[in-house]
Amino acid sequence: MRFFSDNAAPVHPAVLEAMAAADSMDTAYDGDRWSRQLDGRFSELFETEVRVLWVPSGTAANCLALGALCQPWGGIVCHAAAHIAGDEAGAPAFYTHGATLIPVDGPGAKLTPDAIREVAGRIRPDVHQTQVHAISITNATEYGLTYSPGEVAAIGALARERGWGLHMDGARFANAVAHLGCSPAELTWRAGVDALSFGFVKNGGMNAEALVFFRPELAAPTLVRRKRAGLLLSKGRYLAAQLLAMLDGDLWLENGRAANAGARLLAQAAGARLVFPVEANEVFVRLTAEEAAKLRGLGFDFYDWGVGEARLVTSWNQGAEAVKPLAEAIAAL
Amino acid sequence: MRFFSDNAAPVHPAVLEAMAAADSMDTAYDGDRWSRQLDGRFSELFETEVRVLWVPSGTAANCLALGALCQPWGGIVCHAAAHIAGDEAGAPAFYTHGATLIPVDGPGAKLTPDAIREVAGRIRPDVHQTQVHAISITNATEYGLTYSPGEVAAIGALARERGWGLHMDGARFANAVAHLGCSPAELTWRAGVDALSFGFVKNGGMNAEALVFFRPELAAPTLVRRKRAGLLLSKGRYLAAQLLAMLDGDLWLENGRAANAGARLLAQAAGARLVFPVEANEVFVRLTAEEAAKLRGLGFDFYDWGVGEARLVTSWNQGAEAVKPLAEAIAAL
Amino acid sequence: MRFFSDNAAPVHPAVLEAMAAADSMDTAYDGDRWSRQLDGRFSELFETEVRVLWVPSGTAANCLALGALCQPWGGIVCHAAAHIAGDEAGAPAFYTHGATLIPVDGPGAKLTPDAIREVAGRIRPDVHQTQVHAISITNATEYGLTYSPGEVAAIGALARERGWGLHMDGARFANAVAHLGCSPAELTWRAGVDALSFGFVKNGGMNAEALVFFRPELAAPTLVRRKRAGLLLSKGRYLAAQLLAMLDGDLWLENGRAANAGARLLAQAAGARLVFPVEANEVFVRLTAEEAAKLRGLGFDFYDWGVGEARLVTSWNQGAEAVKPLAEAIAAL
Amino acid sequence: MRFFSDNAAPVHPAVLEAMAAADSMDTAYDGDRWSRQLDGRFSELFETEVRVLWVPSGTAANCLALGALCQPWGGIVCHAAAHIAGDEAGAPAFYTHGATLIPVDGPGAKLTPDAIREVAGRIRPDVHQTQVHAISITNATEYGLTYSPGEVAAIGALARERGWGLHMDGARFANAVAHLGCSPAELTWRAGVDALSFGFVKNGGMNAEALVFFRPELAAPTLVRRKRAGLLLSKGRYLAAQLLAMLDGDLWLENGRAANAGARLLAQAAGARLVFPVEANEVFVRLTAEEAAKLRGLGFDFYDWGVGEARLVTSWNQGAEAVKPLAEAIAAL
Repeated sequence: MRFFSDNAAPVHPAVLEAMAAADSMDTAYDGDRWSRQLDGRFSELFETEVRVLWVPSGTAANCLALGALCQPWGGIVCHAAAHIAGDEAGAPAFYTHGATLIPVDGPGAKLTPDAIREVAGRIRPDVHQTQVHAISITNATEYGLTYSPGEVAAIGALARERGWGLHMDGARFANAVAHLGCSPAELTWRAGVDALSFGFVKNGGMNAEALVFFRPELAAPTLVRRKRAGLLLSKGRYLAAQLLAMLDGDLWLENGRAANAGARLLAQAAGARLVFPVEANEVFVRLTAEEAAKLRGLGFDFYDWGVGEARLVTSWNQGAEAVKPLAEAIAAL
Repeated sequence: MRFFSDNAAPVHPAVLEAMAAADSMDTAYDGDRWSRQLDGRFSELFETEVRVLWVPSGTAANCLALGALCQPWGGIVCHAAAHIAGDEAGAPAFYTHGATLIPVDGPGAKLTPDAIREVAGRIRPDVHQTQVHAISITNATEYGLTYSPGEVAAIGALARERGWGLHMDGARFANAVAHLGCSPAELTWRAGVDALSFGFVKNGGMNAEALVFFRPELAAPTLVRRKRAGLLLSKGRYLAAQLLAMLDGDLWLENGRAANAGARLLAQAAGARLVFPVEANEVFVRLTAEEAAKLRGLGFDFYDWGVGEARLVTSWNQGAEAVKPLAEAIAAL
Repeated sequence: MRFFSDNAAPVHPAVLEAMAAADSMDTAYDGDRWSRQLDGRFSELFETEVRVLWVPSGTAANCLALGALCQPWGGIVCHAAAHIAGDEAGAPAFYTHGATLIPVDGPGAKLTPDAIREVAGRIRPDVHQTQVHAISITNATEYGLTYSPGEVAAIGALARERGWGLHMDGARFANAVAHLGCSPAELTWRAGVDALSFGFVKNGGMNAEALVFFRPELAAPTLVRRKRAGLLLSKGRYLAAQLLAMLDGDLWLENGRAANAGARLLAQAAGARLVFPVEANEVFVRLTAEEAAKLRGLGFDFYDWGVGEARLVTSWNQGAEAVKPLAEAIAAL
Repeated sequence: MRFFSDNAAPVHPAVLEAMAAADSMDTAYDGDRWSRQLDGRFSELFETEVRVLWVPSGTAANCLALGALCQPWGGIVCHAAAHIAGDEAGAPAFYTHGATLIPVDGPGAKLTPDAIREVAGRIRPDVHQTQVHAISITNATEYGLTYSPGEVAAIGALARERGWGLHMDGARFANAVAHLGCSPAELTWRAGVDALSFGFVKNGGMNAEALVFFRPELAAPTLVRRKRAGLLLSKGRYLAAQLLAMLDGDLWLENGRAANAGARLLAQAAGARLVFPVEANEVFVRLTAEEAAKLRGLGFDFYDWGVGEARLVTSWNQGAEAVKPLAEAIAAL
């Protein structure tokens, strides 16, 4: 059993079915009947008017969002461990035409208003230094923690006060919402988020993410930028159909809950080994090299995370039942 | 029946099957067992060592190729009607960081060595004017004509002589090869092509194209650029599996032949109405507004192409048998 | 005597004096007492509130202006013979992060509203084609013709109607104003110009141009972009002092008049040899190779301009008196 | 007396004289007789074949150098306090088309091979993380310390071993050479430096710096990039003439020595107040607010540097004699 990454998981059957159902001749790009439903369906989910673009990767969603919120000469405050800072090969600079990431430290890959203020306060307000244009937070974070609606709102208030944009990388948005039990609206626009990378790929989708703009005027230029980046796929209906299928009956949330349940069970088994509280589908545990080898010998695979730690990620199809063998193996160490 | 675009066609059943067969947990990005076969399988097809990257769109393939062949301060000679010039929203400039397209005219969207020489000859060889770094040709062209191996080789020889790169936009490469009856090798690297955008999306695929480098050293930086552009999809196996399925038993060629056969039948019906010889799967015909309306009244849909002309595009599933009703309707006008 | 280029001329003595007078310790960059006078002094000249940035080259002025008026994914309509199109090595794409120049033909390097409308009308209003964001005109043009206030206003009206920006490359603005006898205001903002590259280098200055914004809100981001481009010179006072000296007593206009007078005398001598009417300081004449050689044998130097034509450019120090020997030599051919 | 910045100093008389001497009609851009001497004269100075481009600012020199040494998707290791990191408004990203600065800490704004190795060692060698392409060091550093030839060579050896480029920001190169007593060759190419921003503006010049390439093949593309950035000034002879005048009789070194001597005298007066050893023309001293106010009351001006510290910079015209009053005032505190 593999706990490397939720990217490695298979696709949810409902997604495959929706793609098969969309397999007929229709208008190319995003003119098809599925793509045209996205704005409406996501607006319902978010209880406000939103504009939605499908894109084939989370990096694409993040970077188009940042391009909409930050000028080429601006800065984007993010956590030093953010995916955009360390795992996107400079894509934010590519898409923004050179904006600067301003990394901030903080436990669990979480930003706080104070930490942001402190870093921003060190920037001289002149033309020689790069000024902040936007903040990007990841929810759930790269270490499996969540920002509550209140925590997001505190950052959102700071952003509003300073005239900065606020982006949320929601590669694991489903896991965050599932954990927090809040509404998608509370966790986003009501808390001041301007743009959300709403992840589906790590949650049972197949190379389809939703970039959601809560300020609809940001969508128009981004539609052009999506095309200009080679991301306006010819057969967009296969992406749109997936997203719609995920919204049906809140499948996205159900999948997030399942993965979280698996992670929770592992967390219980890990007990004092936990490096961070488990609030989503990632479990960071302390393991000696011998213990890691033992687990691998039993057929469980995962990434080492530095020395003496390992990262276990559960997917939509690795709920509590499915991860029991690993939980037991951990408990037995 | 719709003849708008081969982008609008459904996906070939073998592609869907291959995707379903790839639907299991595997390494993310391009580390999976399907992606790792691409270099080998395409090298067999092209009878030489090639490096292959899957990408989700033709624009992405074209522009990554151009980025590998042209510096930000260089120029790319292309036909004025080329897809990269008129239908990619400036993506070549985005991906090359500002390179300049140098459009050249010529019948049927085809370039000739003389036309290229003429345009290049007008450029002063100094730092004030943009120098040519690369040529891009489309085969089959945007008007459904093909370059023969000899025609490509003549352009290739010019490129070599001047030290320029040569890219082929093969969004309809299958149709070109099917029409010419040559080998993929003859039409590409043996004729001096450095990089090929090998199209599958218009030929029965689902948002998966192959960027083929005949100079393997161009692949390494392009792998980074693909990631940096948000194009390294998390679940690459669903793209790779498609491409492999298309290579099996030369399905790509069979699909191209079918579409060409449909186009040929329409061409015969159109007779003197033809604007261009039909050498691939696009048929440009002269139609009065009344005639166009009549065809539409019969349930056939297509794009007007300027005044008094229309474009009919056949897809992999619109072979000779399938297009008969339209052929008869045209003949009956 | 050299008639190659007004770039080759020496610097006006008043400019050198002003630079010497500024040669004391003062605040670096643009915080000095001279730079701080620019907005006020140019606002007086233009009879409205303007914001002014010194830059060290015309290319820099043009491209910063275009960056302020055109997004990276937009298009800029210009004449095919415009300096930005043919002599700036792709700098507009560099500064705008990839915007596309849309060249238009027309006699004397002049654009007309009809020609612009025609080209813009061929662009489909979708995300696949680059949309127009701005127009750039050169006054006086690259062929020594001028746009009258009325001609500029007609283009300005079109720009306003479509929501496009309007830039004027005024590398030879002084010559245009001198010829037209209008006020700087009439020829610019009153006619709809948003940004002017006000040239001084070709008019007796030393590597100092003024970028003038008639929409003051465009200045703030451009101040940052100037720094980001390495154009915020440490000792800006030597540029600002020049510009102020040029404004004193309308020296800029006097210099433009002198150069124009020289050109007019050459034009009279050239008579039927003239390729274009002479409205500024450039004279294009038909000369056989033998005639050109004869003039060169007499010590006059100039550029051939294609076959059978030559370009003679007069500078601020080549007024009617100074060019008499050349005028006589031409008349004597 | 002002000790704000060596940027604020006046221009050396020999520079003004050289500019006046160059004030005649000559070829525009860099075709004039002064510009054409640069390669030869700097090659003599550096005892090897170099290629030299004048540019009007240090930011321009730095960023053109980085563009030559780092691809858009690469990373540049520099000190966190480097001018390129904190005072160039993101110009490195603009010129490199998005490269990432990788800041490293270390006392006195100096990098060490170990510190570089440590940071580079944390980067996974895959396409998801930005790989190092180049190192940039500043000599003398932003805190007035120098790298000895041996220290540079140690970094140079690391760069060679890894295939990285090595840039030296020599805004205060003269001060470093003056302090170290070494030859320009020892401190640069013999120690592995590929490109040097050789500063003249802070050393008595007027908006003219020399970008020196020790790998001549880097010059050709940079000549194009200089033009494309609007930095190929029309009247380059006024820059070239300055640089030549500075080389005459090693005026550049004499000026550097004078500024260093002023700084040394201030350092002696400051004694235990010194924050860093004084090895160039910058003196960082601990001053209470009262002490700072007292000095200012006596007519000395300077920047506060954080809380309780001040930065005093001496210029070419502030040698030991000239700074005596300030030295005495500091000693008397």
